[in-house]
Amino acid sequence: MAYKSRLQGLGILVLCVLLSPTMTAAQQPMLNLIPVPAHLQTGSGSLRVDPSFSVALTGYAEPRLDRAVDRFLQQLARQTALPLTMKPMKSPKATLVIQTEHPGKEIQEVGENESYVLEVSATGAKLTAPTPLGTMHGLQTFLQLVNVSPDGFAAPAVTIQDQPRFPWRGLMIDSARHFIPPGVIKRNLDGMEAVKMNVFHWHISDNQGFRIESKKFPKLHELGSDGLYYTQEEIRDVIAYARDRGIRVVPEFDMPGHSTAWFVGHPELASGKGPYEIERRWGIFDAAMDPTSERVYKLLDDFISEMAKTFPDRFFHIGGDEVNGKEWDANPKIQAYMKAHGIKNGQGLQAYFSGRVQKLVVKHGKVVVGWDEVLVPGVPKDIVIQSWRGQASLAQAAKQGYRGILSNGYYLDLGWPAARHYAVDPMSGDATNLAPEEKQHILGGESCMWAEYVNPENVDSRIWPRNAAIAERLWSPEDVRDPTSMYARLDFISARLEWLGLTHKMYYRKMLQRIAGPSSPEEFAALRTLTDVMEPVKDYTREQTAPAEPTSATPMNRVVDAVPLESDAGRHFGELVDQYVAGTCRDASLADQLRGQLAVWRDNDQRLQPLAQRSFLVKEVAARSQDLSALAAAGLAALDAIAKGQPASDSWKSQQLAKMEQAKKPKAQLLLIPAPGTQKLVEAAAAGGACFAAKP
Amino acid sequence: MAYKSRLQGLGILVLCVLLSPTMTAAQQPMLNLIPVPAHLQTGSGSLRVDPSFSVALTGYAEPRLDRAVDRFLQQLARQTALPLTMKPMKSPKATLVIQTEHPGKEIQEVGENESYVLEVSATGAKLTAPTPLGTMHGLQTFLQLVNVSPDGFAAPAVTIQDQPRFPWRGLMIDSARHFIPPGVIKRNLDGMEAVKMNVFHWHISDNQGFRIESKKFPKLHELGSDGLYYTQEEIRDVIAYARDRGIRVVPEFDMPGHSTAWFVGHPELASGKGPYEIERRWGIFDAAMDPTSERVYKLLDDFISEMAKTFPDRFFHIGGDEVNGKEWDANPKIQAYMKAHGIKNGQGLQAYFSGRVQKLVVKHGKVVVGWDEVLVPGVPKDIVIQSWRGQASLAQAAKQGYRGILSNGYYLDLGWPAARHYAVDPMSGDATNLAPEEKQHILGGESCMWAEYVNPENVDSRIWPRNAAIAERLWSPEDVRDPTSMYARLDFISARLEWLGLTHKMYYRKMLQRIAGPSSPEEFAALRTLTDVMEPVKDYTREQTAPAEPTSATPMNRVVDAVPLESDAGRHFGELVDQYVAGTCRDASLADQLRGQLAVWRDNDQRLQPLAQRSFLVKEVAARSQDLSALAAAGLAALDAIAKGQPASDSWKSQQLAKMEQAKKPKAQLLLIPAPGTQKLVEAAAAGGACFAAKP
Repeated sequence: MAYKSRLQGLGILVLCVLLSPTMTAAQQPMLNLIPVPAHLQTGSGSLRVDPSFSVALTGYAEPRLDRAVDRFLQQLARQTALPLTMKPMKSPKATLVIQTEHPGKEIQEVGENESYVLEVSATGAKLTAPTPLGTMHGLQTFLQLVNVSPDGFAAPAVTIQDQPRFPWRGLMIDSARHFIPPGVIKRNLDGMEAVKMNVFHWHISDNQGFRIESKKFPKLHELGSDGLYYTQEEIRDVIAYARDRGIRVVPEFDMPGHSTAWFVGHPELASGKGPYEIERRWGIFDAAMDPTSERVYKLLDDFISEMAKTFPDRFFHIGGDEVNGKEWDANPKIQAYMKAHGIKNGQGLQAYFSGRVQKLVVKHGKVVVGWDEVLVPGVPKDIVIQSWRGQASLAQAAKQGYRGILSNGYYLDLGWPAARHYAVDPMSGDATNLAPEEKQHILGGESCMWAEYVNPENVDSRIWPRNAAIAERLWSPEDVRDPTSMYARLDFISARLEWLGLTHKMYYRKMLQRIAGPSSPEEFAALRTLTDVMEPVKDYTREQTAPAEPTSATPMNRVVDAVPLESDAGRHFGELVDQYVAGTCRDASLADQLRGQLAVWRDNDQRLQPLAQRSFLVKEVAARSQDLSALAAAGLAALDAIAKGQPASDSWKSQQLAKMEQAKKPKAQLLLIPAPGTQKLVEAAAAGGACFAAKP
Repeated sequence: MAYKSRLQGLGILVLCVLLSPTMTAAQQPMLNLIPVPAHLQTGSGSLRVDPSFSVALTGYAEPRLDRAVDRFLQQLARQTALPLTMKPMKSPKATLVIQTEHPGKEIQEVGENESYVLEVSATGAKLTAPTPLGTMHGLQTFLQLVNVSPDGFAAPAVTIQDQPRFPWRGLMIDSARHFIPPGVIKRNLDGMEAVKMNVFHWHISDNQGFRIESKKFPKLHELGSDGLYYTQEEIRDVIAYARDRGIRVVPEFDMPGHSTAWFVGHPELASGKGPYEIERRWGIFDAAMDPTSERVYKLLDDFISEMAKTFPDRFFHIGGDEVNGKEWDANPKIQAYMKAHGIKNGQGLQAYFSGRVQKLVVKHGKVVVGWDEVLVPGVPKDIVIQSWRGQASLAQAAKQGYRGILSNGYYLDLGWPAARHYAVDPMSGDATNLAPEEKQHILGGESCMWAEYVNPENVDSRIWPRNAAIAERLWSPEDVRDPTSMYARLDFISARLEWLGLTHKMYYRKMLQRIAGPSSPEEFAALRTLTDVMEPVKDYTREQTAPAEPTSATPMNRVVDAVPLESDAGRHFGELVDQYVAGTCRDASLADQLRGQLAVWRDNDQRLQPLAQRSFLVKEVAARSQDLSALAAAGLAALDAIAKGQPASDSWKSQQLAKMEQAKKPKAQLLLIPAPGTQKLVEAAAAGGACFAAKP
């Protein structure tokens, strides 16, 4: 119904689009859109964006739409530096005419219509959408279309019919392990809006902090947060800010584990004796709520009642992950209770607890979301499973009729390259084999920013730009999956995101300046040459490789805290090596480029050494600098050998490979990204293979 | 008296300092302090700054000092990323003990004691000051001392006894020609605090805008500002913010000229017939207040009364510059009045007007400041002359017993290199010949940021870091004048200023990204290689070279709006050439460095061309890119000739010099900074001089 009325509203232009042969999304020309729209057809010419640009809001009206247009115009003015008229008009003669059909839900719902049609021609643009959500998405698409052109700013002529593949496209931010101030949350909501994500999952309590004001139980935040918490006013402000951007806010109160911070003010909730202190370390801890205590459920009833009113969203996340059960095992009262009630083990006890809490959540009008672990036999069918331990559990849940969202594969803190996240699809893995009606249960996914090693200074850089690749996975058609195209568009959107106030690019030079201290331009450039090709160790190895046990008080001023999680320079080098070797090492221009890059790296250590003498933070990476130098020398020697046309000797090869092994080892918790590429060069130089066979 | 009590407070440590042979300021070791303190003596060792760092406030207490310490600790935490205790203590065992002797004036006064003594040893630090102003200055010095060291963050052991050379050290910001929002003003106040400037001169009305809310005459801001004005609440907030940073706020209401924006709402004030509109162009215009109308003085009386209450400072600036008198000449009523009152010409009429307005200002309890032009015979002796037309007028004023401040030589909008501003001294030029008691009348100086070509996006970059060089000129002893040392310290402070939220560095990449549009890293690097060596045309040539008449609605998105006013890369190249030629072209390493740089420039044009095809903003500088390439080729040819050991032929020389002339011409309102340096290489290659004579 909504779709039909939209088509009628569009009239003849849409008909043309429907009659023309449309390209599949994967065939679409490069338009720097992230996420790639569902259907796109390019037209001819482009729409000039100059100071006469105007916007008209027609159809359904609400203040949220006015604000969306205000934001749109501000952003357009920022992108172009044109003196635009900042007030929308009512005239159908405006450059961009927006037609919204009807209101959205008062509380944004999962699966609400988010579609829109955007037609841009040389003479004007029309954006039509059934609901304000679609309108807002379409405005973001328009902003991405506008660029500098040979004769001014312009948007290419294009017809886009777009809607999301999944209705749940989320970002989780953990603001418990390190407090993330409201302003930082907000700029990340701006980033989410730009890439059409629609759920902000707020991980707001954990062992390391209880970060929200409770009027009913003030000891929770007063004693559980070191004073670093959100007031209810701030929370409401963030929720309104998110709603304005088509984003739902789902709070998570992790229980019965991950809850030490609750017990500082309310030790009676815990299964152990206490007293409890805010946890400063990372990991899984013993403290857990007492599932056998009615006082626990009484407090949770009141608390959930309060929070259910604070967060209007239909969904309410109760965590449920990583309970080790040690406090339960150690508590005779709990053990007695289990025996009396036929509860066999910790898992059973957690299931009992989850069941009780779920009833409270339902009582207060909400639907439960929980991590994998809450999926135990007998759990009511309406809960939503957030799968973090693997894609299997998501498929398993869907098979059993539970709705699910995928986070396994989308953990931003693990430091994966964007392409690796991008390759993970909620419908891949075990989900491939689901029946169509079972697949319906998979609502989408959520990227997760766990905050052991992030703070307001570097958190944006740990989320962006990689999160945009995940946003595209969750919005765009399944066949949009070329990583090369994704990276090209990611570079573009990354620059654009800066205009929104995100600091994911500019933080880097500032952190390096702190690390370097007073330094000459040459010294600073040498530091940057090194740091540009390093990444923090991946997955969960950061704890294991730490020089001392990390805590929430550990300063985050080291190189490992500063370097981006994905090295662009390292990736480009790897691509170049692959191209060179795939072309049987015959391309002299590629060889020259590689040689130029390797020579810079080889000579860099010498330039960096004076700085390493003056700064302990640079000194920590001095060995990495030597490794880079050695690695580059090996790469240059490999290119020399290839140029000679004779495979290098075995002894040379094993000598060089030993250097590569050295370079591949993490030091100072950092990986040297050009190591595998250089190793390929060494292997090519040593093998009697294609690189030599093909030579004259 | 204040000084004596301070010495007593310091006790034995100061005695040691006084007994040791102290270095003159010019001999001081490089400590990256800007401004360089009056007296400094280095000690041995350094004070570690770690998470145990603490601050105690002792002596005189007031909330402003608490806030200063809060800011200090926040900034220290930002500089180091250490988890510091953010609350000051009372204990004398704190790492840094602050002792403030007594309160400052309720309204900060010119010449108030701003001195402080800062002693840092390996075991602790002590900051002693007679007033909160000195304490605040000393805290900024301490922040500049703290740096990364071989084993953690530390401040070197040092004893500093410091006070300013001049009591009036100002920055003027024109927020009339382009509106500068309060947040931008505030971050610039933070920058001023960091370099110990103490006057913010707010040029708040001009032809192009009346930017302050008047409760008595609301038509002034309602009709004279396009809605871009400061509310009185915002003004009060900025004044309080400034006072917290030891900065006075002097408002300027420019009259009788520069006042078109007044006349939009109040045409009865004008000498012409009207109607008037907000001026959109730049320059000197005819509109002027009517000095013969009593209605003018009546309104000004009420208006000055209102503004005198809003701005607590003792000084009140009435402008007075650049009246061309055309409206006066064209108005028979005014002409008749002049005849009747024996006023001979426009200058006489302006003197009459100034006299009347001065009386009103005095009536409302303030002292008048005015530009050069107000200094006419008979002006009362207590006014302050701000000299913009030359240093002669400052000396002349001082000779006549008027107090003066120097702005000639400190106009930031003229695009001079920092070193050129730095060389201007309020006591140089005609002031050199003043008697000591006449010199006393020179209160200091003010840098001026006129806003024809600045907006919130690039204004910080037009002020900083060059303004820090002027701040040093006005604070530090006269013999601190080595530009090499200044530039080294300027680079350092420039990076530090970014921590305060100033955007003078990060705006650049953003603006270039808008100019480039979607681009490969190589293309973007090529753009930056070019823009890094260009500067906007200097002085007042921007108007003259404009492609179309610039107005306040002209978009500021061109390369000329983006590039810094002083090219670091260009300056470094020039220094390198000077070194090379001064060394009779014998230093092979310098030759190699020059060759490397020139080769990059020569090849850059080719890399940039694809971008010039796609972006009109890049296309505008395509010819400059070709000039850079040609220039670099000439430079390389010159180095080749020198290497051959034979002077190049005259025909070669004149051919190359023709290219240099081409390169030196402004295009797209941009100068190619390496042109003069390259010319020196060409001349060295062609001359039979030292570069050849010295060769074997």
